[in-house]
Amino acid sequence: MPTLDLAAVVSEIAQEMQDAPDRGRPADYISALATVDVGKFGIAVVTADGQVFTGGDADETFSLQSVSKVFALTLALGKAGDQLWSRVGREPSGSAFNSIVQLESEKGIPRNPFINAGAIVVADVNLGRSAPKEALSELLAFVRYLSDDSTIAVDEQVALSEARTGFRNVALANYMRSFGNLQHSPEETLGLYFGQCALAMSCRQLAMAGRYLMAAGRHPASGHQVVSSARARRINALMLTCGHYDASGDFAFRVGLPGKSGVGGGILVVAPGQASIAVWSPGLNANGNSQLGTLALERLVARTGWSVFTGQAPA
Amino acid sequence: MPTLDLAAVVSEIAQEMQDAPDRGRPADYISALATVDVGKFGIAVVTADGQVFTGGDADETFSLQSVSKVFALTLALGKAGDQLWSRVGREPSGSAFNSIVQLESEKGIPRNPFINAGAIVVADVNLGRSAPKEALSELLAFVRYLSDDSTIAVDEQVALSEARTGFRNVALANYMRSFGNLQHSPEETLGLYFGQCALAMSCRQLAMAGRYLMAAGRHPASGHQVVSSARARRINALMLTCGHYDASGDFAFRVGLPGKSGVGGGILVVAPGQASIAVWSPGLNANGNSQLGTLALERLVARTGWSVFTGQAPA
Amino acid sequence: MPTLDLAAVVSEIAQEMQDAPDRGRPADYISALATVDVGKFGIAVVTADGQVFTGGDADETFSLQSVSKVFALTLALGKAGDQLWSRVGREPSGSAFNSIVQLESEKGIPRNPFINAGAIVVADVNLGRSAPKEALSELLAFVRYLSDDSTIAVDEQVALSEARTGFRNVALANYMRSFGNLQHSPEETLGLYFGQCALAMSCRQLAMAGRYLMAAGRHPASGHQVVSSARARRINALMLTCGHYDASGDFAFRVGLPGKSGVGGGILVVAPGQASIAVWSPGLNANGNSQLGTLALERLVARTGWSVFTGQAPA
Amino acid sequence: MPTLDLAAVVSEIAQEMQDAPDRGRPADYISALATVDVGKFGIAVVTADGQVFTGGDADETFSLQSVSKVFALTLALGKAGDQLWSRVGREPSGSAFNSIVQLESEKGIPRNPFINAGAIVVADVNLGRSAPKEALSELLAFVRYLSDDSTIAVDEQVALSEARTGFRNVALANYMRSFGNLQHSPEETLGLYFGQCALAMSCRQLAMAGRYLMAAGRHPASGHQVVSSARARRINALMLTCGHYDASGDFAFRVGLPGKSGVGGGILVVAPGQASIAVWSPGLNANGNSQLGTLALERLVARTGWSVFTGQAPA
Repeated sequence: MPTLDLAAVVSEIAQEMQDAPDRGRPADYISALATVDVGKFGIAVVTADGQVFTGGDADETFSLQSVSKVFALTLALGKAGDQLWSRVGREPSGSAFNSIVQLESEKGIPRNPFINAGAIVVADVNLGRSAPKEALSELLAFVRYLSDDSTIAVDEQVALSEARTGFRNVALANYMRSFGNLQHSPEETLGLYFGQCALAMSCRQLAMAGRYLMAAGRHPASGHQVVSSARARRINALMLTCGHYDASGDFAFRVGLPGKSGVGGGILVVAPGQASIAVWSPGLNANGNSQLGTLALERLVARTGWSVFTGQAPA
Repeated sequence: MPTLDLAAVVSEIAQEMQDAPDRGRPADYISALATVDVGKFGIAVVTADGQVFTGGDADETFSLQSVSKVFALTLALGKAGDQLWSRVGREPSGSAFNSIVQLESEKGIPRNPFINAGAIVVADVNLGRSAPKEALSELLAFVRYLSDDSTIAVDEQVALSEARTGFRNVALANYMRSFGNLQHSPEETLGLYFGQCALAMSCRQLAMAGRYLMAAGRHPASGHQVVSSARARRINALMLTCGHYDASGDFAFRVGLPGKSGVGGGILVVAPGQASIAVWSPGLNANGNSQLGTLALERLVARTGWSVFTGQAPA
Repeated sequence: MPTLDLAAVVSEIAQEMQDAPDRGRPADYISALATVDVGKFGIAVVTADGQVFTGGDADETFSLQSVSKVFALTLALGKAGDQLWSRVGREPSGSAFNSIVQLESEKGIPRNPFINAGAIVVADVNLGRSAPKEALSELLAFVRYLSDDSTIAVDEQVALSEARTGFRNVALANYMRSFGNLQHSPEETLGLYFGQCALAMSCRQLAMAGRYLMAAGRHPASGHQVVSSARARRINALMLTCGHYDASGDFAFRVGLPGKSGVGGGILVVAPGQASIAVWSPGLNANGNSQLGTLALERLVARTGWSVFTGQAPA
Repeated sequence: MPTLDLAAVVSEIAQEMQDAPDRGRPADYISALATVDVGKFGIAVVTADGQVFTGGDADETFSLQSVSKVFALTLALGKAGDQLWSRVGREPSGSAFNSIVQLESEKGIPRNPFINAGAIVVADVNLGRSAPKEALSELLAFVRYLSDDSTIAVDEQVALSEARTGFRNVALANYMRSFGNLQHSPEETLGLYFGQCALAMSCRQLAMAGRYLMAAGRHPASGHQVVSSARARRINALMLTCGHYDASGDFAFRVGLPGKSGVGGGILVVAPGQASIAVWSPGLNANGNSQLGTLALERLVARTGWSVFTGQAPA
């Protein structure tokens, strides 16, 4: 088997994506996102041995949106442990990211922590006894630690924009509150939730932040266990089965790696034992996932053989 | 890292399961299954280098039921290729194995090939221009080839029992027919489907039959590609996201390997590049999956480190 | 208040409907219905004092289809009494006539006797210990008695056509059978059901047959009570709340009288104490109800003041 | 036919209800309602010729709750006319009063104006350009006019209690807002909605307020048309098909008159051309309708023959 020239692969893919004609459309329901240039594409790959390969707009920040749910979940599991699973399920939802139907038949328990309703419960756990601002600071500190980068910040503009128009998330929070599955007022919990969605990160920062999921829960630089190996494995499992809403099966089928997408156009992907990967391009496909981000990942796994579903590198 | 003594691990687990007090309850809606002894437990592990380890009742045959959907899907993909995906989806269903609700809102297209409705479409593809009996013979020949075992047979008693009482499957088939998503009469398609569910195999035979999914699509004995590496990877992906109905997320969370269960109490599990695994115990848990089979698999992966979601063997 | 010249009203409406440009489209999923001339329109009004007024094609027979559910329900209530209500509900369904969704969440109990699933349960009751042919003869005799017309017959061509293509009804029957809510085989029950739908009647015959519902349960010619006054009232209530599938609310809003429509284009309507009315025109509107039939009824009630919801005749 | 001694009938029924052992349970999700004495029962009947008959606690006020939706709808139709029907449907919902499921599949358009979501849209119409307080004053003035009683008031305690715990209504309002089907902020619209639900009225006042629906839209005292005869008829039709949530079919079957219930235990019922009727007893049955109120109405119609579905008074 020939040695993999990852620098060349990443660089090629970045080039191909810059030239791609069909780039999808940016999310339009959050005004602050609608104006982002669909010409953008970034990719960053951090390998198990600490090398970093980037391409395109890998150092430009974008709105993390639902990708933040991975870090929020990790934090909440540290606070609530497996008790979290009495308030949120671990099954694919079979419906859209903001669907409210399932909540009615399942009495206010969201299907998993990666649909909006589930992430709002996770925010409710992370809020604990703090004010929303403090809890957001704690999450921010956690993400800075994970990525070894103290410059990461929340885009207040985006947070405000979401708070102003996030009627459906307000509906979800109040609906769960009516079943007793929020411990704080919907306003406070959503204060944290909207703030966390508005985290701004670059592909490089995001791929760095995701290293613990590739490395069996260990922070590669410090050697600390962020989470146990078993928990890292389980977070990866949740990303694979539930990370792309109602297109999770398709993503597993096509890319074959745990991943979490956001409507800002970013996707965090984990090749366990091999690499932490971030891609970004603001145009979305019909499922609400980054059009070029998904395509770039398909090509990356085709050229690297990084599927979790094969036991053999490609010839 | 100490060498893994797989023989000892398999033997220990078999012992632990023989002694387990809480064994679940056998499926009662198919009379031929209701009378199976819940005291039974079998396990077989075939490794990438061809070793076979068994424990408990590994050579006793049981009714394959939905586990057969893996082999039927493999066969159908050979016939229809990716055109199959216009007639059946690739997403977790978010509902029970025999739910009809989703079919109504999605116009007769089942969510995936592992829920009953999807497997009936797969049977319709496999039927082709043959009579149900011939098509069943073809599937049987395929399974015998995969497992290198010509003694595998269909349990006619079980097939008849299902045909007599399978009203809900008759409903599913007719419902899809009303949307034009069956090409044969419901009777013919179900003739093949009920026959395929009634395949009788032992854990040893089943683990042997699953080898191609561990080995990037290759039949280890003959060296032939049963399916391409990419297709094997994708079948594994489908097993992981959809293989346990509405408990697929939970199985990925707890076991972390692609698997397919059946109400006969059998589960086929693939550790890509490492092993093909079959377990069987007829008592089911609340989700309709083998109670001890699932528990045994949890212990097996804990002791072998075979999750697809970790990049590091356990210390 | 001027005297109502009903002959003139009926005749005017027939004329207006003959000239109407937008006539809807005939049902196309039953081949025998698809070829009926959309130019047809008939109307018949039988008053409490026994007068009969007709217009247009009032003596041409059409396929009764779901209108037959009223007579089948009346017969079944005579056999099973209020025990029927343990097998079928009395609530509007909030969904289409052939929806299967509600059956899943409500364990095989159809919402009301006028959606297909409910009417299949009613047929199962009417089947009793008879063969489908005998049970159909009994229903036919009942309808002939109600209308004082021994020439009414079943259109065998239509019955065959439905049996050949009625996959969704086969699905509904098998689905309910899987919940134990059919006592006969789906084939036998549907044998009666398809036969009853294929009853061929003219507007005149249909309006005559409906007289007992206008007359507090009494057969006007013979003076016999077909059903008790209370039961007639309740059948009318069911027609009003459930008689037009998911457009029942709209029909009550616009026409304001109990009615039952069929995809053959016929509608039976009851003005309690005043008249039994039948209209027919084969073109259907978006809700599957006769386009001109509904329009004709709106005009009829506007000109006669026959709503059950007003206590005062129009000035 | 003997003359109906309505005074005696009303008085008998009141006595029977005072003695009834099984009285249901008061609504417990609004704290201000949970403490009402289930021993209470009141009834008031106002006839077309202006007589008033009362029994039991007919002059004690109770919380109007959803009964207020009838008056709010009447007011909104005066403001928006038939344009209202582009924002809310006219069909029975087939689900519970506070269900959110249907809103998702039908894009934020509630099924009818009598489920909570529909009534919130109606409140949004009534809000117009006013502040919630002013709009509530307008509704209050309307109800006082309808009942010729200027003492009717809003129970501020109840309004506050609902505002504090009405999470599900907040969810419904925000959900519809996300589809663009509210023109005001959810807070303002709900301000009016919660106020209207908290109207406190006695049976006597309520029966007086409902007179226009019995009298073809006319205010009997002043002779003014509150609404046209056609509109009164249509409001009655909506009450019959949708007035009791998912028990509307059953109420039509058993009582056979247009009615609207509230969780405060009140029910307004209209016998067109004959009487306006109000009953109240705070204990609810499994469907959330007044247990004794429903029973009293069944007996009243049995003894008066006031069903809209019969054309003949009882012998």
